[in-house]
Amino acid sequence: MSRAADGAPVCGLGAEFHAARRAALRESLKEGVLVLRGLPPSRGNLTFRQDKNFWWLTGVESPNVAFAMDIESGHEVLFVYKPSAWKERWEGEIWDSDDAWVAELTGIEDVRPTADLLDVVEEMLGPDTSGEAPRRLWTNLGAHIGLAGSYDSAGPYDRARAKDPLDGRVSREKAFAAHLEERFGRDVHDCWKAMSQIRVVKTAEEIAAMERAARSGALAMCEAMRSCRPGLGEWDLDALLNWIQARHGADGPAYAAIVGSGANSLVLHYNFSARRMRDGEVVLIDFGPEVDHYTTDITRTFPVNGKFTDRQAEIYDVVLAAQAAGIATARPGSTIADVELACRDVILEAGMQEFMRHGAVHSVGMEVHDPGSMRGELVPGMCFTIEPGLYEDATGIGVRIEDVVVITAEGCRVISDQAPKERSEIEALMAEKGVLDWVDGRSNR
Amino acid sequence: MSRAADGAPVCGLGAEFHAARRAALRESLKEGVLVLRGLPPSRGNLTFRQDKNFWWLTGVESPNVAFAMDIESGHEVLFVYKPSAWKERWEGEIWDSDDAWVAELTGIEDVRPTADLLDVVEEMLGPDTSGEAPRRLWTNLGAHIGLAGSYDSAGPYDRARAKDPLDGRVSREKAFAAHLEERFGRDVHDCWKAMSQIRVVKTAEEIAAMERAARSGALAMCEAMRSCRPGLGEWDLDALLNWIQARHGADGPAYAAIVGSGANSLVLHYNFSARRMRDGEVVLIDFGPEVDHYTTDITRTFPVNGKFTDRQAEIYDVVLAAQAAGIATARPGSTIADVELACRDVILEAGMQEFMRHGAVHSVGMEVHDPGSMRGELVPGMCFTIEPGLYEDATGIGVRIEDVVVITAEGCRVISDQAPKERSEIEALMAEKGVLDWVDGRSNR
Repeated sequence: MSRAADGAPVCGLGAEFHAARRAALRESLKEGVLVLRGLPPSRGNLTFRQDKNFWWLTGVESPNVAFAMDIESGHEVLFVYKPSAWKERWEGEIWDSDDAWVAELTGIEDVRPTADLLDVVEEMLGPDTSGEAPRRLWTNLGAHIGLAGSYDSAGPYDRARAKDPLDGRVSREKAFAAHLEERFGRDVHDCWKAMSQIRVVKTAEEIAAMERAARSGALAMCEAMRSCRPGLGEWDLDALLNWIQARHGADGPAYAAIVGSGANSLVLHYNFSARRMRDGEVVLIDFGPEVDHYTTDITRTFPVNGKFTDRQAEIYDVVLAAQAAGIATARPGSTIADVELACRDVILEAGMQEFMRHGAVHSVGMEVHDPGSMRGELVPGMCFTIEPGLYEDATGIGVRIEDVVVITAEGCRVISDQAPKERSEIEALMAEKGVLDWVDGRSNR
Repeated sequence: MSRAADGAPVCGLGAEFHAARRAALRESLKEGVLVLRGLPPSRGNLTFRQDKNFWWLTGVESPNVAFAMDIESGHEVLFVYKPSAWKERWEGEIWDSDDAWVAELTGIEDVRPTADLLDVVEEMLGPDTSGEAPRRLWTNLGAHIGLAGSYDSAGPYDRARAKDPLDGRVSREKAFAAHLEERFGRDVHDCWKAMSQIRVVKTAEEIAAMERAARSGALAMCEAMRSCRPGLGEWDLDALLNWIQARHGADGPAYAAIVGSGANSLVLHYNFSARRMRDGEVVLIDFGPEVDHYTTDITRTFPVNGKFTDRQAEIYDVVLAAQAAGIATARPGSTIADVELACRDVILEAGMQEFMRHGAVHSVGMEVHDPGSMRGELVPGMCFTIEPGLYEDATGIGVRIEDVVVITAEGCRVISDQAPKERSEIEALMAEKGVLDWVDGRSNR
């Protein structure tokens, strides 16, 4: 269901976009049959969110959906719920096999109940003509990824569970593949890598979605700057960020916000937001909303009281210069390694290398750590963050500045820069009246 | 990590509270050895949340923790992570076996690395003295429950997965029990029912936590009333509720908010929040934050434009009178069925029974649908909602009013009534300036 359509169902970023993703995957896989399952309804009392790769190929945001495609012929079948008036009375519109609009909306003309899945796959695979090489059966063996998920978090989680001597359960994807192998008596092949390679270069629709995410995040960051003051809790800013970004389209955070004040600014993935912020400290905010399945990733660091101290300013300006150098290097023909080195050179020149703790670049897309590679030349449509950081234990000053850039024909475009990062601009914005000032100034209700 | 402790670790609602929960469980189980595992780190990029039953017994909010207890002797062991300076540098404080404060904070003196779990359980079980009945081995076979989770959602999810012919994986709890049975060669017994029975009557600490949750929810509802106006999206109120409750202590929603305007007010679990609200409609908001692992569940229905129409008022007043009758009946010695009947009688008398769609009462506690029973007499400390509703398809008017009550010695106390429900009070509050009015009145940034 979509805000843009005033509550009516939509097909993701548009039927054409998703059809083109499937066409690209067909071209990559070349032959065989692809079968994918969407996610079941939420385990908790939460709004359903589709697996990102399933959504990317189909645009369908409804539970218990499946999809099968004959790679050579292009025959596609979408499997949806059997209709249930009772269920819809409780839960609202569910995509079901009586909904004629499903085919129209998705452009997938063959829509059937989910129970038919394996029979259709069997038919697509065709008769077992022994002697010939059997047609390949493809599925996604990569970890399913929901809201606030990423392959580098979900994958290790699934693998740790499988290896846990007190657990041992395999992933949803491996369990499905095992059933496919048993039923069809042939190996199942993994299409994750092929999908991930296509995902590295974003289309115009994807970049537009990333710009919506970046804008909602930047507006939230601006409000946090306006409202920040000593005595507020880190949670006050965390809650405020989530509110503003949700107003501007976010389905939720792409990851738990890092709102680290004082010594917490040194903890790279601090996400407790449990401390009260004090005068004279910095607060480091690293967060990103997810809008229409695309994420952003913005970090700003600013003084809790609205004025940088001398030492804060010294460190801040080096980080900002490092980021600027990285941005200047991000263009077609450069590599991620070039961008990393450009950031690093500025820090080395300033003699602050001992305060470095992490790399400066990662891909961003549907996942906040999106599939990508450190190798190879940059090409237009790649999206990644540039986020140098310096962390001085002795003073409790951690500074990180992070923006998302899109590689263009000429260089790159920073899409998250509605949130200021020049010190003077930050101080000016922090002097404005914020929404927390207004709320707290009201009769404290 | 806790706001109350300015970011320092705390033991849940206090070491004494959790020790008393363990003592009650020992009394109920009588003999044997209890072994429980807490949850692993989050699969997504989200803040860790402990399984509720594990937390309730230990107060420990840290990943990969386990607990074992000799029921007869009372010997207790807490198992925590091995220390990792690298991990803590990235993620902040993790409860580990080098942290001397863990024993002090929890009151569990014997703290060891998680890897020792089964050896300790083996030692507790003692030698296999064949011929005698072996000591019972207990674990929780109930579905683990996180933020926004409840047993009546997680349990069916786990069972559906196990029965799914394309999946078939058992629950985390059953997988653990199978390993225990294999290792120790004896049946594993389920302590879920015993825990749930203890949980039905809330302690003073639990009631205080439920009051914190109720207050944060009621304050959020008041802000939604002040800010509501035609043209806003359901998402605007949804996001606002989440913000205000998070400011006032909520770790998140206990369930996805239902913000249903117009015909969406008729959909009982509508949680898309995707429609723009129109003049002349009602909006039904049913939501609840979770604070310190306890939830609340509040519903208010109000006119989008701030003034009830005649028909809206007619239906509204019957629902309000039904709720009042239910509240008047909730006292020691009554039953849940008495409360249900009291609500129903008012609706029958008004001739509106055809608009009824659901029961009026469910238990609330750590879960928004908490373990409880429709049978037996009410006793002080029981907490449940009273939520009659009427849904008129022809006019698109759905009205539900819901509050959480605690049974006291004399009757009951409504703990969520800071949000008004008399029509005149609602209209007065809606006439006040809301935070969205202020934000949108500012230069639209």
